[in-house]
Amino acid sequence: MIQRLAILGVGLIGGSLALSLKQHGLVGEVIGYGRSQANIDEALALGIIDKAVPTAAQAVMGADMVVLAVPLASMRLLLAEIRPYLAANAVLTDVGSAKGCWVDDVLAVWDGVFPAFAVPAHPIAGAERSGAAAALADLYVHRKVVITPHTASSLDAIARVTQMWQATGADVRQMSVAEHDETFAWTSHLPHLLSFALVDMFSQRDDVARLFDYTAGGFRDFTRIAASDPTMWRDIVQLNAPAIGEALAAYQAQLAHYQALLANQDWQGFAESFNHAKQTRDAFLPPKKS
Amino acid sequence: MIQRLAILGVGLIGGSLALSLKQHGLVGEVIGYGRSQANIDEALALGIIDKAVPTAAQAVMGADMVVLAVPLASMRLLLAEIRPYLAANAVLTDVGSAKGCWVDDVLAVWDGVFPAFAVPAHPIAGAERSGAAAALADLYVHRKVVITPHTASSLDAIARVTQMWQATGADVRQMSVAEHDETFAWTSHLPHLLSFALVDMFSQRDDVARLFDYTAGGFRDFTRIAASDPTMWRDIVQLNAPAIGEALAAYQAQLAHYQALLANQDWQGFAESFNHAKQTRDAFLPPKKS
Repeated sequence: MIQRLAILGVGLIGGSLALSLKQHGLVGEVIGYGRSQANIDEALALGIIDKAVPTAAQAVMGADMVVLAVPLASMRLLLAEIRPYLAANAVLTDVGSAKGCWVDDVLAVWDGVFPAFAVPAHPIAGAERSGAAAALADLYVHRKVVITPHTASSLDAIARVTQMWQATGADVRQMSVAEHDETFAWTSHLPHLLSFALVDMFSQRDDVARLFDYTAGGFRDFTRIAASDPTMWRDIVQLNAPAIGEALAAYQAQLAHYQALLANQDWQGFAESFNHAKQTRDAFLPPKKS
Repeated sequence: MIQRLAILGVGLIGGSLALSLKQHGLVGEVIGYGRSQANIDEALALGIIDKAVPTAAQAVMGADMVVLAVPLASMRLLLAEIRPYLAANAVLTDVGSAKGCWVDDVLAVWDGVFPAFAVPAHPIAGAERSGAAAALADLYVHRKVVITPHTASSLDAIARVTQMWQATGADVRQMSVAEHDETFAWTSHLPHLLSFALVDMFSQRDDVARLFDYTAGGFRDFTRIAASDPTMWRDIVQLNAPAIGEALAAYQAQLAHYQALLANQDWQGFAESFNHAKQTRDAFLPPKKS
């Protein structure tokens, strides 16, 4: 049970967390802070938060759970702003898509000493829609939430963050920060980059309208993630650059292999690669029954 | 009105064409030929074809419309087999995803002289499912069918193929063979290659199961086409290799640009690319209303 939950950034992710905990009766009061007054007004009107406050400092005062759900690039300034006002019993956590950068932000603000009450976390949930109006109480049911505790994170703080997310119906996992950032560079960040790259390449052609006229369902699915928020993805690339650079290099090697197959007219080589891919995908992501 | 339609290869594409023409009362009799007896039996049972014959030669005898709906790699042998048996009033067309190779096949079989009754065509319809059992009478409604007439194709033959496809509800377009093969190298063949490449790269990792455990909806959409038929796609790569090689090289240049942005820590460069991509995709493929 959380007495007072502070949500800093009341968008899809933070708002859905608040809604779910309220629905399950697991939170006393939800305090919201955000830079967009219109969004905060909507969050209040929808009952996502009980009270809105004009500063981050006011939001965290007296809160036993503080969730930072702002863009990755805004974390460090916000951490510096709230540090003096955190309650003695507060647990501090976040929802960022990259975790090494958040640990760095915390270390920078806490003078190089990671505080025991801080626990990095990353709920894996879609982000095509945004804002408080998009929040859903059941967003996290059967979704994964990855917690990447620092060696300094206390067992009590880890347990409280874990229990909070489990209460939303999420499947909570733990891994190291490095393992997290490499894993999501491959499963999420690289595919986004590749999809943006393809559509940007199309956009540079004079006949882009004609090309799109001849796209079909496969192209639509392949490029759906190229409609994601460009600012959020610029931040992710910046803040997980080393792991993304390695994943991208591995992919470039795979494409160089394909060019070599083309040059050698090695069609059997393509058949082998395509077979591996199909078998792998069918095994791990079987087609949904229609 | 087609008196006698010969469908060589009664799968999703050929079967759906036959079903649609029958439903609209635009075909007298449909003769089917295919190598899989089980599939042909199913096509008969489902009323997709009226009669099955054991050879391609028998299928085309007396047919005024002959549609080759077999894999690209099987076209040339089949063309050689049917050439002596085509009726004097027959129109010959195909449904292949690459068109230069089909023109080459026809030229090879017709001793370098493209026949006036032949018209290359390509219906743009999904191919996730296959076989006669997957055929749908309305598969082509509002779908595009691209006809790429040879300079030798007669206006009468072009008109008869155009009318056949228009009768299914399709939006029939014309372009040159070269324009077709470049267009679909970009809009279809390259995305398939990129999706196969990513999943094959995953399959080579020891922790592939763990990686897939942390994929989400974006990855699922991005890799849906990696579950496509490997043999069909090997054929497409082989038979449209030059155009695919150029599209792949353009994409590799785009990824090299991304690596340069990473090396130069040029995050603004990523923001610009992602913005172009999002604006382009939103403009041409707006999100479906939910």
